[in-house]
Amino acid sequence: MAEIYFDNSSTTRVCREAAEKVMEVMTKDYGNPSSLHAKGFRAEQELRASREAVASLLGAQPEEIYFTSGGTESNNIALFGAARARRKRGNRIVTTAVEHPSVLNTMKRLEKDGFAVVYLKPDAQGKIDPEQVREAVTPDTILVSMMRVNNEVGSILPVEAAADAIEAANAPALLHVDAVQAFGKLPLHVRKLRADLMSVSGHKIHGPKGIGALFLRRGVHIEPLTYGGGQEKNIRPGTESVPLIAGLGAAVRALPDLETELAAIRELNGFCRAGLSKIEGITVNSPDDALPYILNFSAGGVRAETMLHFLSGREIYVSSGSACSRGRESHVLKAMGLPEERIGSALRLSFCRFNTKKEAEIFLAALREGLASLTKRPLR
Amino acid sequence: MAEIYFDNSSTTRVCREAAEKVMEVMTKDYGNPSSLHAKGFRAEQELRASREAVASLLGAQPEEIYFTSGGTESNNIALFGAARARRKRGNRIVTTAVEHPSVLNTMKRLEKDGFAVVYLKPDAQGKIDPEQVREAVTPDTILVSMMRVNNEVGSILPVEAAADAIEAANAPALLHVDAVQAFGKLPLHVRKLRADLMSVSGHKIHGPKGIGALFLRRGVHIEPLTYGGGQEKNIRPGTESVPLIAGLGAAVRALPDLETELAAIRELNGFCRAGLSKIEGITVNSPDDALPYILNFSAGGVRAETMLHFLSGREIYVSSGSACSRGRESHVLKAMGLPEERIGSALRLSFCRFNTKKEAEIFLAALREGLASLTKRPLR
Repeated sequence: MAEIYFDNSSTTRVCREAAEKVMEVMTKDYGNPSSLHAKGFRAEQELRASREAVASLLGAQPEEIYFTSGGTESNNIALFGAARARRKRGNRIVTTAVEHPSVLNTMKRLEKDGFAVVYLKPDAQGKIDPEQVREAVTPDTILVSMMRVNNEVGSILPVEAAADAIEAANAPALLHVDAVQAFGKLPLHVRKLRADLMSVSGHKIHGPKGIGALFLRRGVHIEPLTYGGGQEKNIRPGTESVPLIAGLGAAVRALPDLETELAAIRELNGFCRAGLSKIEGITVNSPDDALPYILNFSAGGVRAETMLHFLSGREIYVSSGSACSRGRESHVLKAMGLPEERIGSALRLSFCRFNTKKEAEIFLAALREGLASLTKRPLR
Repeated sequence: MAEIYFDNSSTTRVCREAAEKVMEVMTKDYGNPSSLHAKGFRAEQELRASREAVASLLGAQPEEIYFTSGGTESNNIALFGAARARRKRGNRIVTTAVEHPSVLNTMKRLEKDGFAVVYLKPDAQGKIDPEQVREAVTPDTILVSMMRVNNEVGSILPVEAAADAIEAANAPALLHVDAVQAFGKLPLHVRKLRADLMSVSGHKIHGPKGIGALFLRRGVHIEPLTYGGGQEKNIRPGTESVPLIAGLGAAVRALPDLETELAAIRELNGFCRAGLSKIEGITVNSPDDALPYILNFSAGGVRAETMLHFLSGREIYVSSGSACSRGRESHVLKAMGLPEERIGSALRLSFCRFNTKKEAEIFLAALREGLASLTKRPLR
């Protein structure tokens, strides 16, 4: 039996186009883009091509794209950089309780430095009320950071309301959007969203792990987090990982039409939801209007890790909560106010364009078997 | 004519073993090490194998190795982390004027934060006098940062004297060694060198660009620079770049015996020096006892960029100063007190195990031709 990988929000398999590009750059165009000879120039061309691909997907200019080592670094550069640059203009930061740990833990550090951080609470479906955002943003707010899509339940967050709120309050706030789970899956137009900063990552869209990008709107100043030889206009110094940057570009170019793929994933998600609804004791935790790439549900009293291992034994790979929280209790489901049992038994399916309905059928059958055998196991 | 790459201290071609490993991990064992299923476990095993390989080369324990995105990030984590963690114990930092920009520019930032940084000056050969180190380290010194091998001229710096000086002064100083140019080329035993922190990089030893490591001695506390999901024991969070980490491990395992390779490179270097000594107007800038992988010389009044482009036209790739300084005047040669003309005409050859004597012959002939044609060009 071939393996079934339903854990694409944790990470993805690198697609053929990206893998071949990485290989080519590692072994052939391996120059340092800072070198002044022809080999350096060819490496520089790889950077340019990839920068254009990422910019195009975000509706940005190429010179507004800075390559980083991934979503976590993009988030850290954005948040520390914006907060430290705007410190003199105010002290308040607004974010949500369902952000990724690379945002939440950076916020904790900023609190230690004296910033006042407001964490907006989600409803029982992981959604953030736009009205709540408008109330939270005050004239002394210097930064609003909000993810576009929540990584655990797939809820879509009201980034537009955040931009409205900043304008309404006439606040000196920069708007940062953690778009790691939305990149390549939802239209992300930085001008329409009025984002000043946006974080994206390669390994969620069949690019390699270890590469990401930060959109930084032209004219916006942030304080650098690291110092070095001037690469990426001093925003992210260090010899550029040309193979991974080129691989990210290749992964972006290999993306199918967003709308077409979204429709296919919506169908797959619907098929799973229909299947789950027929199994006793299953409760779906994702909202109905979640991004269909993510489907979170609680499996009737069986501990998530137990079910995850049962499925893994059959080469079916799903996640408990998010991979980043590594078995720790989900801060997202907790913020949603779910009862302990639902949190402890929560599993996440996350899809990609290589998944099929046949795989979903096999998964549903295995889940039924797992529930039957694991709940019948005598308690000693 | 095949290309001749004598710019290996800028970056190297990824070796077959490393490239194949990267490919395998990108397309087969592509799980997230934080995932609890079997696919995550296999990714975790790749991390472990690579950590063991790097640790073994440094005489360290695997749990003392933290993967980063490269030398620049390792240096930033080490310097900011050490300085901020020891701030209450003193204010003085000792380093040298010939460090890499990722050290020097981080030091400038630390000066802004109130630290007093002492920059030791090199002699005319880029060497640092051990006696000078002993005098500089005082009882309120909290950090000493010294590269093992200078990237522009190949001089070997007295790290042992730095360790002695810290002990003699009974200073609360951590010792950081930027070993990027020494890694895989000189024996680097962290215990013998008494290093608390050591930075290394993959792409200087035929590993991929975008991966490095930081040795952090067990029991030494530093303040993290970035925050996230707990990876690398919170010292360097973010989904691990498993393909590159595995590639780094493969590159380390593919290294030939250090002594044997050093002897071969010494011969190649000697051959080049002998050839250069027969060309009028050439002055060697590297000391006689430099690491033989690096050979810096000034080419009789022809601007380095001009000669570099002439050679590049023949697919011979060398560097002017270091790639990182990208044509800006070398701060290393300037600190050595060389006259302007020698600085402006300085070229760096940097070798690897794939270079041959035949290549050196072709290079020397091309250099002669370049000097003849470029110096004869009428001045208008």
